[in-house]
Amino acid sequence: MVSSAENHSGEGNKLLFTPGPLTTSRAIKEAMLRDFGSRDTAFIETVRRIRRQLLKIAGVSQEDGYEAILMQGSGTFGLESVVSSTVPGAGRILVVVNGAYGERIVKMTRILNIDARVLRYEENMPADIEEIRRVLAEDAAVTNVCVVHCETTTGLLNPVEEIGAAVRERGCFYIVDAMSSLGAIPLNLETACIDFLVTSSNKCLEGVPGFSIVLARRDALLATEGAARTLSLDLQAQWRGLEANGQFRFTPPTHTILALEQALQELEAEGGIAARAARYQTNHAILMEGMQRLGFHTYLSPDRQSYIITSFYYPDDPNFSFETFYDRLNRKGFVIYPGKLTRADCFRIGNIGQIFPEDVTRLLAAIEYTLKEMGVQLKATVTESAA
Amino acid sequence: MVSSAENHSGEGNKLLFTPGPLTTSRAIKEAMLRDFGSRDTAFIETVRRIRRQLLKIAGVSQEDGYEAILMQGSGTFGLESVVSSTVPGAGRILVVVNGAYGERIVKMTRILNIDARVLRYEENMPADIEEIRRVLAEDAAVTNVCVVHCETTTGLLNPVEEIGAAVRERGCFYIVDAMSSLGAIPLNLETACIDFLVTSSNKCLEGVPGFSIVLARRDALLATEGAARTLSLDLQAQWRGLEANGQFRFTPPTHTILALEQALQELEAEGGIAARAARYQTNHAILMEGMQRLGFHTYLSPDRQSYIITSFYYPDDPNFSFETFYDRLNRKGFVIYPGKLTRADCFRIGNIGQIFPEDVTRLLAAIEYTLKEMGVQLKATVTESAA
Repeated sequence: MVSSAENHSGEGNKLLFTPGPLTTSRAIKEAMLRDFGSRDTAFIETVRRIRRQLLKIAGVSQEDGYEAILMQGSGTFGLESVVSSTVPGAGRILVVVNGAYGERIVKMTRILNIDARVLRYEENMPADIEEIRRVLAEDAAVTNVCVVHCETTTGLLNPVEEIGAAVRERGCFYIVDAMSSLGAIPLNLETACIDFLVTSSNKCLEGVPGFSIVLARRDALLATEGAARTLSLDLQAQWRGLEANGQFRFTPPTHTILALEQALQELEAEGGIAARAARYQTNHAILMEGMQRLGFHTYLSPDRQSYIITSFYYPDDPNFSFETFYDRLNRKGFVIYPGKLTRADCFRIGNIGQIFPEDVTRLLAAIEYTLKEMGVQLKATVTESAA
Repeated sequence: MVSSAENHSGEGNKLLFTPGPLTTSRAIKEAMLRDFGSRDTAFIETVRRIRRQLLKIAGVSQEDGYEAILMQGSGTFGLESVVSSTVPGAGRILVVVNGAYGERIVKMTRILNIDARVLRYEENMPADIEEIRRVLAEDAAVTNVCVVHCETTTGLLNPVEEIGAAVRERGCFYIVDAMSSLGAIPLNLETACIDFLVTSSNKCLEGVPGFSIVLARRDALLATEGAARTLSLDLQAQWRGLEANGQFRFTPPTHTILALEQALQELEAEGGIAARAARYQTNHAILMEGMQRLGFHTYLSPDRQSYIITSFYYPDDPNFSFETFYDRLNRKGFVIYPGKLTRADCFRIGNIGQIFPEDVTRLLAAIEYTLKEMGVQLKATVTESAA
């Protein structure tokens, strides 16, 4: 395993405890030191290898009837590509919402003028599978169902496999926003009955930001062809372009694609998703133990909490200001993330990317020191180790 | 001036004589060796500096009432962002077409379900300003006009300033696709009456691919607000996000943005657009003289030919095959580009990016050698220097 020190030293890189862009390895960034023509055979081969590898990560292959499509733009572009290219003109999408990213999908459908039915839950409550089953049974107009796997708003996990079984039974197309989960949480497209999964180059795959990734069941791609509402985000046209000659329809972000190839090699070298999940789980356990020791409380109950990103309540102390806390940690080289909750004052700490247990320990020390600087007192829940 | 050798040595980088992605400097690629959080103050400042600098390149500023907006995705995404966010629901766009990129805009309007009127010219004919005036006078439904500045299909230049005057007189919104011209051909948004100009990070600004750039007159942005047809490509929402807190609405491609900042510094250090234009003109003059000497003929007449990219007819010799020609040059380290013409067999050679006169001379030598290898005979037009 690469140590943190040799990855980050000497470049003024801060450690990013965020939901992305994340800290990436030096080798991943160095893969970008090359200009490739977009029609270069070597580049086309890189895209081909990446597409194969991405399917493998999701437990499937082209032979099983699945396709990987790279789409320019951030994860939201990828998600809008799927929503705008797969809901038929007269279709209706059922959107399951328990956070800001679910709400974003609803907003998308409004602008796209797509009929949407919304099932909303509290931000600390996973989707209710029984209610989803009921709605699917009673509402014959629903053609597509969309849910966020790990709600990056809070770190909440939704039961995507159980929802998938219900959606497949009803014969709808199933879209999963796996932005912050793919690469960290084992997921099999086939057993989870997922037709379209969307993720990003710069989350748990640990590449740099620059494009989004769609994994799709080929028959679902074919069955929805013709639904696209824009040229740029036309998912099926992008797929057909990649299939025809291995090329993007429009100029690809060649450098960031080279970075993803390196990132996927590093994922394999680390031992695949199981090993990466283990590292993130260790990071998360150290973070939880340390934050609890310092007296912080999490927004979610432990059984709903993923090991990707965690929302912590602001300390109940008038001396605490998030801006000061953030700035002081930032100056020490640690970047945390603001909250995105509608009803609670929280900040977020991610533990994904090229972050190792010793980095989390250093972050905890910096947090403890910063609280002292700010004169913030927290009631420690595990008193014996509070010092 | 940086010499070619120190830029490209030792990395296996081929020289890209294409319309982009282009050859970029080592320092531009090295600017990507850094992971930034998207909310980092230093990163936000970078975005601010880039936006200011981009307006300056187009001869305007925020104080003059103009705005620079960075949009995720390739140039086509930027163009679709403008078309889909600025043509009113009941509007009509007049699209001037004399090449594949103009046709792409027409295709875009069809998928977006936007009413379009098309003025088509031969691929070697610039737009007819008198006809545009006539159409604008007779067709009261037209609300937007769109034209490609340098048609990368051929290298043809359209008279964007004259069209601009006619469009402004008629009170329509004027959209210019300046993908392969901004940074190489001096252009002033104000005097050309351009409301929305679209370009890319990886053409004559010499950054790496990864995002598009829209320069807009603020009043035109405000007047068209509410027209957006997608969430991701909502131009005004992206602008308001950048204005509110300096941040992108959705994860920005941080690394490629750092590369553009370095690229803009290098543009200034080179002496601005005048100096860059002079270098490209020299490159182009050497290319034209050399290709003529070898017996090649250009598709366009010299008065219509830009100094960005040039279309050459295939040699009239049965031994010539473009694929072989391309592959043999590629193996020698020179990447040229296929043609994109509907009616003539041509290939293209670009002379933009970090390409210097000595690179063009080396390309010419490689072409001459490759033709000999292939046994292709051309009738030289300047006989005395044909050897």
